[in-house]
Amino acid sequence: MEKTYVFGHKSPDTDTITSSIVMANLEQQLGNTEAKAYRLGNINKETEYVLNYLDLEAPELLEKIDDNANVILVDHNSPKESVDNLENAKIQKIIDHHKIAFNTSYPLYVRTEPVGCTETILYKLYQENNIEITKEIASLMLSAIISDTLLLKSPTTTEEDKEAVEQLSKIAEIDYEEYGLDMLKAGTDLSGFTIDEILQLDAKQIDFKDIKSIVNQVNTASIDDVMQMKDQLEEGMNKIIEEQDLDIFMLLITDIINSNSQVIALGKEAKLVEKAYNVKLEDNTVLLEGVVSRKKQVVPIMTENA
Amino acid sequence: MEKTYVFGHKSPDTDTITSSIVMANLEQQLGNTEAKAYRLGNINKETEYVLNYLDLEAPELLEKIDDNANVILVDHNSPKESVDNLENAKIQKIIDHHKIAFNTSYPLYVRTEPVGCTETILYKLYQENNIEITKEIASLMLSAIISDTLLLKSPTTTEEDKEAVEQLSKIAEIDYEEYGLDMLKAGTDLSGFTIDEILQLDAKQIDFKDIKSIVNQVNTASIDDVMQMKDQLEEGMNKIIEEQDLDIFMLLITDIINSNSQVIALGKEAKLVEKAYNVKLEDNTVLLEGVVSRKKQVVPIMTENA
Repeated sequence: MEKTYVFGHKSPDTDTITSSIVMANLEQQLGNTEAKAYRLGNINKETEYVLNYLDLEAPELLEKIDDNANVILVDHNSPKESVDNLENAKIQKIIDHHKIAFNTSYPLYVRTEPVGCTETILYKLYQENNIEITKEIASLMLSAIISDTLLLKSPTTTEEDKEAVEQLSKIAEIDYEEYGLDMLKAGTDLSGFTIDEILQLDAKQIDFKDIKSIVNQVNTASIDDVMQMKDQLEEGMNKIIEEQDLDIFMLLITDIINSNSQVIALGKEAKLVEKAYNVKLEDNTVLLEGVVSRKKQVVPIMTENA
Repeated sequence: MEKTYVFGHKSPDTDTITSSIVMANLEQQLGNTEAKAYRLGNINKETEYVLNYLDLEAPELLEKIDDNANVILVDHNSPKESVDNLENAKIQKIIDHHKIAFNTSYPLYVRTEPVGCTETILYKLYQENNIEITKEIASLMLSAIISDTLLLKSPTTTEEDKEAVEQLSKIAEIDYEEYGLDMLKAGTDLSGFTIDEILQLDAKQIDFKDIKSIVNQVNTASIDDVMQMKDQLEEGMNKIIEEQDLDIFMLLITDIINSNSQVIALGKEAKLVEKAYNVKLEDNTVLLEGVVSRKKQVVPIMTENA
């Protein structure tokens, strides 16, 4: 049997890492014994908390992929967010909850759903295939849903995510609110990261129509703490803008307790933020009240106003 | 509740028409009571046979779609094969078995699988949702799988298609080989169609890399019968090539009994057929032995050699 590489997006987050592990396990259970989980970058502190809690190793780092390798993509579908030479691979399956940003020359298995987290889809796939969800798998699934939905408070949260969290908490024997807050807080710890690393932690390349952009999101329990690094962050952002010829770089500093985001916007199209949210940037920054979801509250609004 | 338009591709075939009806029924069963099946063109004779057999009306013709209308696409995903102003609609779901040829700016439900027929996926969806498959629904599903896989003989046929046919035959109480051959033969009846209509019956706009093309497929029980119209067919094809500025127009005349296709190829890139299949066109035509699937045996081979 040929090897199958299962991986999520660059700048991996908890959903991407856990979904790789969980999907590889599902494939193995279904007879694809050579399915193996990989990661495309460093583990963040939130994911580290989850893996430590479960005493699990992080998946192996994948730097490039062989021509004609079998791959399964989870938690992403855009080649921009994937392994560099994806165009030479044979994509077998895609399990994701993002907008569609890829094309193929062959039919394949695609399962995308507009839910809060990839793991919510995987939870359904386990059930559809009558595969037992072990305590460990349930804990991984639960962690990702809490992460992506910010404890079911993000506007991306659907009834299916809530239902999954309820059932998975029982199987995992976890008080999800207590565990979830600890996990999210662990993810806000920026100590030990350089400015350049912080700016890559959860950065996505996104085009708002013709406007070339990166939107990076950093979770925090205290916006003030992060804003103390504003000068250094802006310096790093300006460097990336120049290197990658970006029109706008948005850094969302998201308060996971109060559900707001402070945005720092730089680049020649930075004023698009003012138009999109009807606000005024002062010293390149403004508080966007109630905004916590890049996917639901940033990308469509910025695109519409571009 | 808002209306939801459920439809398949232009130049509708049996899979497109029956999947529209079956998917609209599934949506209704799941509570989307305003889901309704539509068609984007004339019913072919094979589909007419199926609808007559079941005493069913064809879905209503849809000429254009209102801005922001809710739509569900079945058996296609490319905007080129869809309703003209699809870009203004809100795509809710896509159920399909073709290559991915669309992008969105929002996440949505997509379910594509590399199986022989859309109805094979719908068969699974009914089961996953515990919705009863009635005798009528089973007959519609069965007809489409027989049609798309040419009685399970096309190389697009998968184990899942075979399993579905076996189970659906029981529910439908139909001897699928006997019924299937009658249905396929009904579809080969070209009487009453003008040459222009024949050239549109199952025509797909497909680009082989930069080569702009139409591939049309006509099923027959006798290639000779169709080839008697060769001169008129070529005249019609040349007219379409000029009107649409095509590089190549391929007409596949597929013998459903012996599983071969006679191809007529016109246009300035017609010789691509010679390169792709290592054959020689004589008088613009050649027999491609064993070729019956446009998706599996034409598009990838032509694209690779383009």
